[in-house]
Amino acid sequence: MKSPSLRVVFIGAGNVATQLALTLKKHNHSIVQVYSKQLDNAKVLAQKLKSNYTNTFETIDATADLYIVAIKDDAIAELAKHLKLSNKLIVHTSGSVDMAVLKDISSAIGVFYPLQTFSKNKSVNFKQVPICIESNNTKSLKVLSVLAHSISDNVQQIDSEQRRAIHLAAVIACNFSNHMYAIAEQLLHSSHISLDILKPLIQETTNKIKTHSPAQVQTGPAIRNDRQTMNKHLKMLENNADVQKLYKQISKSILTFSKNKKQ
Amino acid sequence: MKSPSLRVVFIGAGNVATQLALTLKKHNHSIVQVYSKQLDNAKVLAQKLKSNYTNTFETIDATADLYIVAIKDDAIAELAKHLKLSNKLIVHTSGSVDMAVLKDISSAIGVFYPLQTFSKNKSVNFKQVPICIESNNTKSLKVLSVLAHSISDNVQQIDSEQRRAIHLAAVIACNFSNHMYAIAEQLLHSSHISLDILKPLIQETTNKIKTHSPAQVQTGPAIRNDRQTMNKHLKMLENNADVQKLYKQISKSILTFSKNKKQ
Repeated sequence: MKSPSLRVVFIGAGNVATQLALTLKKHNHSIVQVYSKQLDNAKVLAQKLKSNYTNTFETIDATADLYIVAIKDDAIAELAKHLKLSNKLIVHTSGSVDMAVLKDISSAIGVFYPLQTFSKNKSVNFKQVPICIESNNTKSLKVLSVLAHSISDNVQQIDSEQRRAIHLAAVIACNFSNHMYAIAEQLLHSSHISLDILKPLIQETTNKIKTHSPAQVQTGPAIRNDRQTMNKHLKMLENNADVQKLYKQISKSILTFSKNKKQ
Repeated sequence: MKSPSLRVVFIGAGNVATQLALTLKKHNHSIVQVYSKQLDNAKVLAQKLKSNYTNTFETIDATADLYIVAIKDDAIAELAKHLKLSNKLIVHTSGSVDMAVLKDISSAIGVFYPLQTFSKNKSVNFKQVPICIESNNTKSLKVLSVLAHSISDNVQQIDSEQRRAIHLAAVIACNFSNHMYAIAEQLLHSSHISLDILKPLIQETTNKIKTHSPAQVQTGPAIRNDRQTMNKHLKMLENNADVQKLYKQISKSILTFSKNKKQ
């Protein structure tokens, strides 16, 4: 069954707006307008979409089916003070902001949160991207569900509290892991070795959690409480107080975690 | 060119010994004997390999081309007090132990370190596994190089100091990242959500570093110094002091790291 095409206004022209708008257009929805505080940014995205663009609230197209707010988290509350759309469906795309922030804009509000990292120039295949949807009314939730299913096979109804937990977990699992890779790269560079040597092992670590709970496949000196190796490592980090402190604390946390599991 | 087949004795019958011995056998080398302090363990592996087995040093086959020590790191020094092989080539498989630990066993020593995690019952495709080799003489290094190339396309000559750096970096990049996944899973479970929802994002995080330096693709509230989001997250972790402390420290480290890069 072909899903009905929606007429959409984008508020925001950054990474999420760009990738989401391009994908919606590709799946036969119409992006009628792009709003951005910076007219130039609105224009750049509008040209890719062949849509109109504006930088004033008064000229926002009032005839669309859906308004998607994809701007910085802390700018959403500010936007809500100025934008009024009475009973038009408006959603934001943020992981950590409550749906209720939109309640002064319209009576029909929601969230359309694609759980992925985006860059303006790297196109994203949305097919596998989990889309977390939420709304304050059943009719709008249905609209969002149809829209989400038109671009992704992984659509989930998630309330604001769960979404906050997902966002926090994503920061820990992805942003923090990436920092571990960055530290590893720095240490290897000091010994004139490329991070390439670790990439098969990094890949295997994420492959393992496809089929196992991460706590069950934890390896390394910390979970074995192998003091000798840990002390060697801490000595190697003597001139790197920041990383040495992290090493101690994460190792301690791994051991605590495994003890709690066993209890 | 077909590489010459070697006659190998394994000292140890754990995860690394099992996977490495099975792979060497598959590539036409002969595993003539397995030694383990626990005769039962030696027997289990020897049966898989159709080799002899023993649990006494006196009965170790003295006619092999190569002796591979794959036992716990801190047991290698102890082994060296008892095992004597005069001028036979002996190597260990450890990431964090110096080659010199073997010098009382023989005049020809080395390291054969496969950079991967192993379990006894999950077979490993060694083709992409980096094998780090080292020896105290050119002739033995050549033997190890031919052996390594017979099972892997990624063979690297790495000295003991570099190997220590690689091992430390692997602990940080892999064991510590896995702990981040474990924490994320625990947080999600408290909100009745499966870790599955994060798996596409985790996959994308490791995909990105195939082509970019991790420090260049760092995202999230810490690198943006987005205090509002970080404070929200810390509040959500109020009843989880251990994770709250980690969150603070890793976020701080991400910010420090990015400032140092810019300087």
